[in-house]
Amino acid sequence: MAQKPSIPKGTRDFGPVEMTRRNYIFDTIRSVFRLYGFSQIETPAMENLSTLMGKYGEEGDKLLFKILNSGDYLRGIDQEMLTSGDYVHLTPKISEKGLRYDLTVPFARFVVQHRNELQMPFKRFQIQPVWRADRPQKGRYREFYQCDADVVGSDSLVNEIELLQLIDDVFSRLGINITIKINNRKVLAGIAHLIGAPEKITDITVAIDKIDKIGIDNVVEELRQRGITDQAIDALRPILEISGTTGERLDLLDSILADCPEGALGVAELREVISGAEALGLNAALELDVSLARGLNYYTGTIIEVKARDVEIGSITGGGRYDNLTGVFGMPGLSGVGISFGADRIYDVLNTLDLYPADTLQSTKVMFTNFGPAEAAAAMKTLRQMRRAGISAEIYPDAAKMKKQMGRADAMDIPYVAIVGEEEMAKDMLTLKNMHTGEQQMLTVDEAVAIITVC
Amino acid sequence: MAQKPSIPKGTRDFGPVEMTRRNYIFDTIRSVFRLYGFSQIETPAMENLSTLMGKYGEEGDKLLFKILNSGDYLRGIDQEMLTSGDYVHLTPKISEKGLRYDLTVPFARFVVQHRNELQMPFKRFQIQPVWRADRPQKGRYREFYQCDADVVGSDSLVNEIELLQLIDDVFSRLGINITIKINNRKVLAGIAHLIGAPEKITDITVAIDKIDKIGIDNVVEELRQRGITDQAIDALRPILEISGTTGERLDLLDSILADCPEGALGVAELREVISGAEALGLNAALELDVSLARGLNYYTGTIIEVKARDVEIGSITGGGRYDNLTGVFGMPGLSGVGISFGADRIYDVLNTLDLYPADTLQSTKVMFTNFGPAEAAAAMKTLRQMRRAGISAEIYPDAAKMKKQMGRADAMDIPYVAIVGEEEMAKDMLTLKNMHTGEQQMLTVDEAVAIITVC
Repeated sequence: MAQKPSIPKGTRDFGPVEMTRRNYIFDTIRSVFRLYGFSQIETPAMENLSTLMGKYGEEGDKLLFKILNSGDYLRGIDQEMLTSGDYVHLTPKISEKGLRYDLTVPFARFVVQHRNELQMPFKRFQIQPVWRADRPQKGRYREFYQCDADVVGSDSLVNEIELLQLIDDVFSRLGINITIKINNRKVLAGIAHLIGAPEKITDITVAIDKIDKIGIDNVVEELRQRGITDQAIDALRPILEISGTTGERLDLLDSILADCPEGALGVAELREVISGAEALGLNAALELDVSLARGLNYYTGTIIEVKARDVEIGSITGGGRYDNLTGVFGMPGLSGVGISFGADRIYDVLNTLDLYPADTLQSTKVMFTNFGPAEAAAAMKTLRQMRRAGISAEIYPDAAKMKKQMGRADAMDIPYVAIVGEEEMAKDMLTLKNMHTGEQQMLTVDEAVAIITVC
Repeated sequence: MAQKPSIPKGTRDFGPVEMTRRNYIFDTIRSVFRLYGFSQIETPAMENLSTLMGKYGEEGDKLLFKILNSGDYLRGIDQEMLTSGDYVHLTPKISEKGLRYDLTVPFARFVVQHRNELQMPFKRFQIQPVWRADRPQKGRYREFYQCDADVVGSDSLVNEIELLQLIDDVFSRLGINITIKINNRKVLAGIAHLIGAPEKITDITVAIDKIDKIGIDNVVEELRQRGITDQAIDALRPILEISGTTGERLDLLDSILADCPEGALGVAELREVISGAEALGLNAALELDVSLARGLNYYTGTIIEVKARDVEIGSITGGGRYDNLTGVFGMPGLSGVGISFGADRIYDVLNTLDLYPADTLQSTKVMFTNFGPAEAAAAMKTLRQMRRAGISAEIYPDAAKMKKQMGRADAMDIPYVAIVGEEEMAKDMLTLKNMHTGEQQMLTVDEAVAIITVC
């Protein structure tokens, strides 16, 4: 019996128009990655579960898609385990592989596995889908692409400056106005040291982040409720009230964190990265934000986040420096810095602002009509010449009614129709119809190629 | 404890050099697909098992990678089922999704699901990985890419002629000499009718295929052993002995199959496709091969197979016409014709014949040296100008020893090194070193850009 077909929830089909748009985004990012000297790698969709488990916290382990072992996966499993209902302990017995959850852990695994073949510093980019068994909701999918670039094997801040330029370059090309927020994990450590409560750092950054919305008095009250002492709040007050230019903010942080070597180092790093990037010039606004606290579990230095200025949406790119990417796979002490572009959110921003260049959305440039075997044969000769000139072209495969053929070109937004009938065959020409103006003229192939190529 | 990292058997990592080569193949195929008016789609890696099961035969069902349901997948399953050891019947209870096995079934599902949004005839291409739990062996992987183009919604043979040209165009661009073998399922049906044993058609094509190797007498003997009657063998003999030009072969088939309408129709189709393609001109040899019998379970008309002429390897592309792609999903009567490029075998052929254009394998064109903060800052300004001119460039991130920096450029086959030291900074110039000749000269940025762009 016929099935009504569907796809798993949280996954998507991409049709021709969506693909053109997505390719525009991926092609832009890919070409900038290459321009900055990053080399592409790809890793398998499936990794051993031993590679993936324990890398994303307990919650992450649950969100991994696990693949049932092939063949008789029940063989050798004792009955007690099967009937206990303890699926958590049964899982590793019947499943050895999982789908990758991000590109970072597979990259770390790749670096360690191929360490002897790689030139350090190793600059890699990777654009591949990842899978997460998250509850699907608007804007959150179970299959989505990540676009990552990382440099490992160098702790030079030149890499940070390069990545800021790269981000600026990608969004300039896409026509998206952005603010790049920057912070440094060491500055956050300095603040935690200042108030004598390192474990409260997340509470503090959350509170700082709210100042614009609820005002400083409410933030102070909130900090008190979260158990921060009045003394700590007094020490923190200059940071809560931080304002002025980036230079002034850096000076203030310097004076506040002077007694904490780690914090002072963080400020010095920020200063070097910001002044280096600004000396080269950015289209983006670069904003020092001491409340920026993403990735506190793994970032150890610079933290970066990108927001679109003209659309209300979460961060569209993020990144930072980490000092122990590969330690878990037995290769400690490798420092790296990376960024990840959020393709799905960038897609939403471009759609909202309608920023796709017109020619991006067009694929086939000309459709040849089909009036029957003899005309089709003549048309295919001309078609061949057009394609040799690099023009994407097709022929209507059946000798259908003219209206139907024209309807196809219309519906697919093909800008030109080439008509080859008796008269054109006799003259070895074609009639080219501009589908937007309705204008049509009889031309030689070369003349038609010249017109279509310009469009 | 540190793990020794590895990947699942039958899967592969692709490093920078392999990716450059693979991208060359995929980019070539993709650009030709577009040139011929095919639109790209992508479908999710995971499909519902109800979509996949039963589409690839019993063996195929076993080779599907199945994904364990999320959460407590054991809930509601009765103990008896769990302890019976009957994993085949347990599987659908604990797994609802699987990884796609090919691109054809997801495409059929896509067409039916989106039937109201698609312009018929629908010309789609799709380049995505597929997964099969096959026993890994040389040249056979558990994850590999397929590159498919199909036209559905038209039974015109113009589509076949277009696909033959497309194949010819792809392999001409790749520089691979090919033979395209062509046959028609209806001709095979006619032969089966002729000998009165439709169920023996596979035996017969296997036998015909061996004539070159073992000679006609041995083939006749083999047919006898397989239970073909002497009378049938006599009827078959002219086909076994078929030779001459394509035209002569077609004439012979016409006379032999004159009494079988289906067979005669097959010959007429072959004639139209072959003459249509040859009128347009092909670089490939196009060879009528009545022993070509791939995809007998689904092909209903044209059958195509491509062999590399200069390398001993299986077919590198295949395809054909099918009349009931979407019937199983409730949309009968949709005719289509498609081809599939075997990217992994094409990769092997290109490697064997060393056919990669030199510039394909180069990515970064110039590496800037780093002598310390001031020099690096100056270098990054020049670097920025180079990138604006479209040149892929990088800077060595650390002020390492000159030998180490040069070693990187050497190892990565970067053709130029740009040196920015005190003298260059003072003159606002750079010293460009050609890494192949060892030559170096001091230049303005514009002069350097001109040289690197030409290379």
